[in-house]
Amino acid sequence: MRILLSNDDGYFAPGIAHLAEALSTIAEITVVAPERDRSGASNSLTLDRPLSLRRSHNGFYYVNGTPTDCVHLAVTGMLEGLPDMVISGVNDGANMGDDTIYSGTVAAATEGFLLGIPSIAVSMVSVSRGNFATAARVALDLVKHYLDNKFHVPILLNVNVPDIPYDQLAGMEVTRLGRRHKAESTIKSLTPRGETVYWVGAAGGAQDAGEGTDFFAVQRNRVSMTPLQIDLTHYDQIDFAKTWVGQ
Amino acid sequence: MRILLSNDDGYFAPGIAHLAEALSTIAEITVVAPERDRSGASNSLTLDRPLSLRRSHNGFYYVNGTPTDCVHLAVTGMLEGLPDMVISGVNDGANMGDDTIYSGTVAAATEGFLLGIPSIAVSMVSVSRGNFATAARVALDLVKHYLDNKFHVPILLNVNVPDIPYDQLAGMEVTRLGRRHKAESTIKSLTPRGETVYWVGAAGGAQDAGEGTDFFAVQRNRVSMTPLQIDLTHYDQIDFAKTWVGQ
Amino acid sequence: MRILLSNDDGYFAPGIAHLAEALSTIAEITVVAPERDRSGASNSLTLDRPLSLRRSHNGFYYVNGTPTDCVHLAVTGMLEGLPDMVISGVNDGANMGDDTIYSGTVAAATEGFLLGIPSIAVSMVSVSRGNFATAARVALDLVKHYLDNKFHVPILLNVNVPDIPYDQLAGMEVTRLGRRHKAESTIKSLTPRGETVYWVGAAGGAQDAGEGTDFFAVQRNRVSMTPLQIDLTHYDQIDFAKTWVGQ
Amino acid sequence: MRILLSNDDGYFAPGIAHLAEALSTIAEITVVAPERDRSGASNSLTLDRPLSLRRSHNGFYYVNGTPTDCVHLAVTGMLEGLPDMVISGVNDGANMGDDTIYSGTVAAATEGFLLGIPSIAVSMVSVSRGNFATAARVALDLVKHYLDNKFHVPILLNVNVPDIPYDQLAGMEVTRLGRRHKAESTIKSLTPRGETVYWVGAAGGAQDAGEGTDFFAVQRNRVSMTPLQIDLTHYDQIDFAKTWVGQ
Repeated sequence: MRILLSNDDGYFAPGIAHLAEALSTIAEITVVAPERDRSGASNSLTLDRPLSLRRSHNGFYYVNGTPTDCVHLAVTGMLEGLPDMVISGVNDGANMGDDTIYSGTVAAATEGFLLGIPSIAVSMVSVSRGNFATAARVALDLVKHYLDNKFHVPILLNVNVPDIPYDQLAGMEVTRLGRRHKAESTIKSLTPRGETVYWVGAAGGAQDAGEGTDFFAVQRNRVSMTPLQIDLTHYDQIDFAKTWVGQ
Repeated sequence: MRILLSNDDGYFAPGIAHLAEALSTIAEITVVAPERDRSGASNSLTLDRPLSLRRSHNGFYYVNGTPTDCVHLAVTGMLEGLPDMVISGVNDGANMGDDTIYSGTVAAATEGFLLGIPSIAVSMVSVSRGNFATAARVALDLVKHYLDNKFHVPILLNVNVPDIPYDQLAGMEVTRLGRRHKAESTIKSLTPRGETVYWVGAAGGAQDAGEGTDFFAVQRNRVSMTPLQIDLTHYDQIDFAKTWVGQ
Repeated sequence: MRILLSNDDGYFAPGIAHLAEALSTIAEITVVAPERDRSGASNSLTLDRPLSLRRSHNGFYYVNGTPTDCVHLAVTGMLEGLPDMVISGVNDGANMGDDTIYSGTVAAATEGFLLGIPSIAVSMVSVSRGNFATAARVALDLVKHYLDNKFHVPILLNVNVPDIPYDQLAGMEVTRLGRRHKAESTIKSLTPRGETVYWVGAAGGAQDAGEGTDFFAVQRNRVSMTPLQIDLTHYDQIDFAKTWVGQ
Repeated sequence: MRILLSNDDGYFAPGIAHLAEALSTIAEITVVAPERDRSGASNSLTLDRPLSLRRSHNGFYYVNGTPTDCVHLAVTGMLEGLPDMVISGVNDGANMGDDTIYSGTVAAATEGFLLGIPSIAVSMVSVSRGNFATAARVALDLVKHYLDNKFHVPILLNVNVPDIPYDQLAGMEVTRLGRRHKAESTIKSLTPRGETVYWVGAAGGAQDAGEGTDFFAVQRNRVSMTPLQIDLTHYDQIDFAKTWVGQ
């Protein structure tokens, strides 16, 4: 089995090292990840310059681009044949609810999915940041389970793992994405040269964190697994919209 | 009526100038757009540095950030009160099918929608690039229609307009997003310093461009309008996934 | 006469517009400047990606690169034949003393000089920022004087102009670069996500601002003109160094 | 003895690892280097955003900025007291002649010098890239010699080391910077999206590579050591310029 790993925290991040170590026990691993932290990169794709692909001393490849660039380049320009899976992470921080749309971790997996490869994004709901190994082992469990129970629909899974020891996990729950309140306001700051600048504020608190959501699951020490799709069409509004435009 | 305009081509792009001109006849316009071309930026959000907000000689504001940053900053840090609408565009190039997920134009509108504001992304299906005025007038029509026929559900509309004169348009059609084939392979190139680099390849051709899709509509000289939503949960797979994990 | 203009504040900056307007009365002007503010860029040159060259609605060209890139690309890849002069500015802010080494404005002129073209960097010692026209007119005076009094050594001139009306200038003075005290310390700041970050501090105050320096001249409302060279060899230390290494 | 190390190839580059290893035998080493390759950065300084300072698993610090930023931040915001020396390198590639003005390696040392610290830039005249250890040992030799033979003038040394085994070096020579011919023309390329882009061309060949220059020394397998200064004033032209402006 051949697995392509990527992330958005950069090729040097501890999360991807844990992932590579865990998965190398059952698969041939190739790591292609951004050369620097690209958190918040979403699905951005670099179109105005070419990408370079370099190899670190530990064998990981790094690209001067986004998480999406990394997977795109690896699959369409570097690897021989499609990998059997794309796994992205372990992200240092949750990717749940509306945040998913901004996430570079999820974007890397999404690119794999768009290219026809079963893909999983794995994030740690960071508190102490001490349990990357838990999330890596969860990823390993999932891949093993997948090998024993293949399914024949395309999959894109968004997995969030509590930042606790593996044996304290209270199981896995299939969830839907929750919703957050609006983000906090930007925070004004003054540069030493007297210009006003603005930091993007913190994410909003959970608005829909009810039963069945990712927020709900991880609060109960469960691994949250949300199957994702990428068709943004709002099918429920189509009839309404037709009426509205008089079609 | 107050409208916030943004785009991903940059504040100096002809598409946003056409949009501002058309809409200023019925609304108070504020333009907050990226300082440079950020096509392909998707929903990326700048978290590792603060943003500056500057004003051009023509009154447009520009931000050293992404389309999402622009709308986020304008709404949560600059404008007094929420604008009545966010309109993004006119993009120089279609945003249809799977491409929607990479689009900075759609992302700017999405950020407005996430912040609770009715939002529209407007793109021109560029051929000659001569008909930005058509797309701007379509946007104006939509806003006028919205004023006369308000609805009370949140909306996020993805509008693609053929690159033809306004009077040659064959009406508007409510559509779903089509699908593309996989992107073409990356293209290798050699730098003058001997390093191999890789350009992201062209988008794939249309795979699902059947009746009802955005591709289908614009090929028939119609304006395509797709209502979007941003919940990526794959509800149809939830039961299957539960079975799979033994939940 | 053909003059290439550039700057480091970006092609849209008021300083370069004033310069273009003033000089177009006596020369054919081509503007090639950065697409965004690149103050502090020094002589940096972009080697890891190619540059794009685009034309603004006002006829100015802009490049997604540094000031040095702009002049380099214009001279070695775009213009037919060498221009007769390269003029960089009008910078919004002084470039005097040690700061010269960090200056993108001076770097653009330096690149012209390295390519064999008489080159001038023009900066305004900004206070109110109201007198770009003064600096532009000083540049025009210099070019006219140059046309009447050509010299046959390569020149690279660093010109700093007080931010006052033209008729209040107290003449021009040929100067040497002064010296500054060390820069102020970096300023710590905390991001909304809790990371400590550091702003580069303000430039140090003048240390050597005595008679004959650029600082001294502009404080007396004179235009400072410093002839520059780019050989960094410390000739006075060569003998000492030979002794030191036992050569 | 405390030494600050930096470079422009990035904190992960082999050259800086060799340098750290060699110098740690006689000094307490702190490495603060760019998070990614910033070759060609010259003295550019980041003024429009704050810098982050992070620590790699091997104890090296990395900054999301330029070589100049790294030394500036380390000295004015991070280290307690001034380090005894700043050493930059080992650069993968020569920094000789006019190129010195574009070099990030030299710029990092220059920033140390401007902050009052004896500073050395060390570059390998790369051919096979196999002899970083030679350059690192040369740096060690220089520092030891400096400890035994302190001098009390500020120094900024530009050292270029042939890419050969240490015992094949034919000594050290104190040199002046040579001169290059103009750079080669930019190289046009076409992006997959049909836009013409331009790569900065290769550096020109040596024009002044005569006896006494850095080029001359390294061609004879000698280490070249050029003392540098940073006053760009062209003193020899001052009288001429005064006459020219009628002062």
